[in-house]
Amino acid sequence: MKALHDKIRQEGIVVGSEILKVDSFLNHQLDVAFLDQVAQEFYARFKDRPIDKIVTVEVSGIAIAALVAQYFKVPVVFAKKLTSKTLDDAMYETLVHSFTKNIDYSIRLSKKYLKEGDRVLLIDDFLAKGQAALGLVRICRQAGAKVQGLGIVIEKGFQQGGALLREEGVHLVSLARILSMDESGIVFGEEDYV
Amino acid sequence: MKALHDKIRQEGIVVGSEILKVDSFLNHQLDVAFLDQVAQEFYARFKDRPIDKIVTVEVSGIAIAALVAQYFKVPVVFAKKLTSKTLDDAMYETLVHSFTKNIDYSIRLSKKYLKEGDRVLLIDDFLAKGQAALGLVRICRQAGAKVQGLGIVIEKGFQQGGALLREEGVHLVSLARILSMDESGIVFGEEDYV
Repeated sequence: MKALHDKIRQEGIVVGSEILKVDSFLNHQLDVAFLDQVAQEFYARFKDRPIDKIVTVEVSGIAIAALVAQYFKVPVVFAKKLTSKTLDDAMYETLVHSFTKNIDYSIRLSKKYLKEGDRVLLIDDFLAKGQAALGLVRICRQAGAKVQGLGIVIEKGFQQGGALLREEGVHLVSLARILSMDESGIVFGEEDYV
Repeated sequence: MKALHDKIRQEGIVVGSEILKVDSFLNHQLDVAFLDQVAQEFYARFKDRPIDKIVTVEVSGIAIAALVAQYFKVPVVFAKKLTSKTLDDAMYETLVHSFTKNIDYSIRLSKKYLKEGDRVLLIDDFLAKGQAALGLVRICRQAGAKVQGLGIVIEKGFQQGGALLREEGVHLVSLARILSMDESGIVFGEEDYV
């Protein structure tokens, strides 16, 4: 998505070769008018698939998921991150490893809000090593829900998340896929590489 | 807001006399079509005030803030909750006490995204003892920003948050204000009691 590439080049802050901060529009401040364009693009990419529910994970996926849901006219459910170990029979749950923080955490989603046969579009802000997205896929499988696709705003294409998700048979659409980056610039992959 | 009262009566789960769970539309699943009606109502209540930015706090305020921001055509900034004690000069920060969890946590907001003179509408999902909202007011004061109002989806009117915020001179609009509740029902206050 050209406008997204431009936005990332204009406002993104690259630290080293692996960290990209987009706090000005996606992760702290939300440029809602711009994110609505992103949401429309997701709608264009997924509108031919029947979708009953948008699923994301707190925190940064929530705003974009809510905007996408307005086009599909379906609810959002956001999985919650927890470090507590108390089991809860009323929740689907899976363990996710964070490479950034080098910890494991649980993500949970109530059995009330995801049912067998639900056709789910997963949405998240970033895809890097893919652990959170794979966790959402596992949660959907626990529920017997069908993952119709995964929409990612920014994929770090130099990490293995995209490959892992395709191996799982997930239809992945990343609106910006970064091949490499450093302080001198960002190289994006082709848009429709799927 | 009549539709909100009805929604809370239909879908809310009251536990004891103090806990209301609205996971079906506001805190876990997001009924985006309904929340958009809530957002329109906030717009109707605050549209005569000049607003440059919507400020909320993660997690449950984000979706409703993003929907409200679409009407005002302004960005959202969401304050982050942290338990870490590392100071960061680039952030406004204040300590907030959680009575529910009996812990103190910090909320932080980058100095980049809130400036002196910014006219701010605060939005949050719940108001109970008011500690998070008062924290947002302090953050705005640190920045020299002007709090133009506070929009709350559900106020627990039997707790002191509303009174504390009015003492601080904040123009508070709660779309549903609960006077009392138990398993047998919920008593709402008059809508335009301000």
